Amino acid sequence: MDIVVTGAAGFLGAEVVAALLRRGELRGQEISRVVTVDRVAPAVEVDGAGPRLVPAVGDIADPDLLDAVVDQDTGVVFHLAAVVSGQAEVDHELGARVNVDGTRRLLEACRRAGSTPVVVFASSLAVYGGELPPVVDDVTPLWPSSTYGTQKAIGELLLADHTRKGFVDGRALRLPTICVRPGAPNRAASSFLSGIIREPLAGVPAVCPVPPETQVWLASPESAVANLVAGAEVDLGSDRRGVNLPGVSVSVGEMVQALAEAAGPEVAELVRWEPDPAVDAIVRTWPARTDISRAVAAGFRADAGFGDLLAAHLRRIGR
Amino acid sequence: MDIVVTGAAGFLGAEVVAALLRRGELRGQEISRVVTVDRVAPAVEVDGAGPRLVPAVGDIADPDLLDAVVDQDTGVVFHLAAVVSGQAEVDHELGARVNVDGTRRLLEACRRAGSTPVVVFASSLAVYGGELPPVVDDVTPLWPSSTYGTQKAIGELLLADHTRKGFVDGRALRLPTICVRPGAPNRAASSFLSGIIREPLAGVPAVCPVPPETQVWLASPESAVANLVAGAEVDLGSDRRGVNLPGVSVSVGEMVQALAEAAGPEVAELVRWEPDPAVDAIVRTWPARTDISRAVAAGFRADAGFGDLLAAHLRRIGR
Repeated sequence: MDIVVTGAAGFLGAEVVAALLRRGELRGQEISRVVTVDRVAPAVEVDGAGPRLVPAVGDIADPDLLDAVVDQDTGVVFHLAAVVSGQAEVDHELGARVNVDGTRRLLEACRRAGSTPVVVFASSLAVYGGELPPVVDDVTPLWPSSTYGTQKAIGELLLADHTRKGFVDGRALRLPTICVRPGAPNRAASSFLSGIIREPLAGVPAVCPVPPETQVWLASPESAVANLVAGAEVDLGSDRRGVNLPGVSVSVGEMVQALAEAAGPEVAELVRWEPDPAVDAIVRTWPARTDISRAVAAGFRADAGFGDLLAAHLRRIGR
Repeated sequence: MDIVVTGAAGFLGAEVVAALLRRGELRGQEISRVVTVDRVAPAVEVDGAGPRLVPAVGDIADPDLLDAVVDQDTGVVFHLAAVVSGQAEVDHELGARVNVDGTRRLLEACRRAGSTPVVVFASSLAVYGGELPPVVDDVTPLWPSSTYGTQKAIGELLLADHTRKGFVDGRALRLPTICVRPGAPNRAASSFLSGIIREPLAGVPAVCPVPPETQVWLASPESAVANLVAGAEVDLGSDRRGVNLPGVSVSVGEMVQALAEAAGPEVAELVRWEPDPAVDAIVRTWPARTDISRAVAAGFRADAGFGDLLAAHLRRIGR
């Protein structure tokens, strides 16, 4: 069985590719090849990956590229390629091309391939917005307040229709914000949620653009990768193919307090509180917590709490 | 002010074009030109239309055509072009190209034009589906059960995001099924709802593919055209830009009974009841009635009942 991973050079994509190569099997079948789609080949180092790792370098919105990588041997597609929230909001054309056209054309390539591949689509809490009920669950209406959320909701609609018609077997996983995300800041509106932990621990000042009482919904990189892979194997047992993944609910103030306790007040003091109305407006439309009972019943993994997310990062940086 | 009408050669499109040319003004401004977009020029005969009627012949999904017709002088766009429900379900590629790509590219052309035109989008009850609440209203979640409904829901999401960003001033009008629609049957799943009245009155047998107890939601051609034009002028007073237009709720059995009473039993007996599971499956996901309070408050017009729809058709055919 071949697997296709889009956005494979991104942080989560590369981790998913590595995890798949290490496992060697998925859905009870041996993995013959992992075909990566991105503008560059991913930096993945797994012993013995060899010819099983096949980079396809190009544009996710290029139908010819997609037809070349998705074929009858494709058993599973992980669709992670996306223009992130902050960038999709300001660069409207790029966001629409990658997030709408790219997703639509990938699903069309799956339809043409005719093998009904499992498609794991990385969706987002940004599909929600407006006046939310006290508990957001898998039947809460999608009512996005951002361009990124609009584009992810469109992806979910396309995925559901292609699933209904038997073109794919789709699963849309609404990921919490990943924290602590390694590497450099990106143009996601949520990027600061890793920055306010990662940068101070590296001795670098960081700006928090929302007030301390802002509640957020986070998952560790480890559980995000494990849950994306699990997304290919779970049975959602319904025609509702969108599922809210488990997360931990914490306020930004509590995050910085935990940082002070774990690494010392002088580290936490590197966080400057400088409200940015544009970021705040986007972040406050995201649910701070969702009902995860369906996700847990399906077998997705939950982090224990923010303390564990912080501890995992401290271990990762050898501190 | 210039007006653009897509799908202008279709039945509703040509009627909207004619109504605009007869009015001569919209939103308090004189109409300089009505630019029609369709694969053929519309057959519109209005005295004195002359140079005000400007046909643009081409493909709704062609960005160059759209950039050529939408410009700084465009004050209002009526977006009626669509592949209908039955056809979008079976010809997946054509439906996606016209209904998704066409709508997305039209909105992009409006964004590039920079004049924030009012966009009146013909949406559909097909955006609903699954388990519906007893009363469908303007906040009922969009959960389409057909490819056409999926594509209309995507159009509504794009329209809402472009409205939020100030690229357009959008209004998505969810039209009831038009009855009695003149002309030939088309590939909409709802086409039979006009056929079972129109064909027998012309002495031609007609097939009804759903059981007599099936409840449907209808509007006359006259109120549909009037409400599309009104859509450019109403104030929806909210960021919810999708609105369910008024209709009349009637069962298919009652429709044929009314036909028998108005035109004689020998006419009604030309209707053959031959259930078609494919059509029935689509029709039964549509709400048979919606809460119209918001639409009526905004100034949209309601038909009085099915008797009036039938009487209007009888007048039209001179009977």
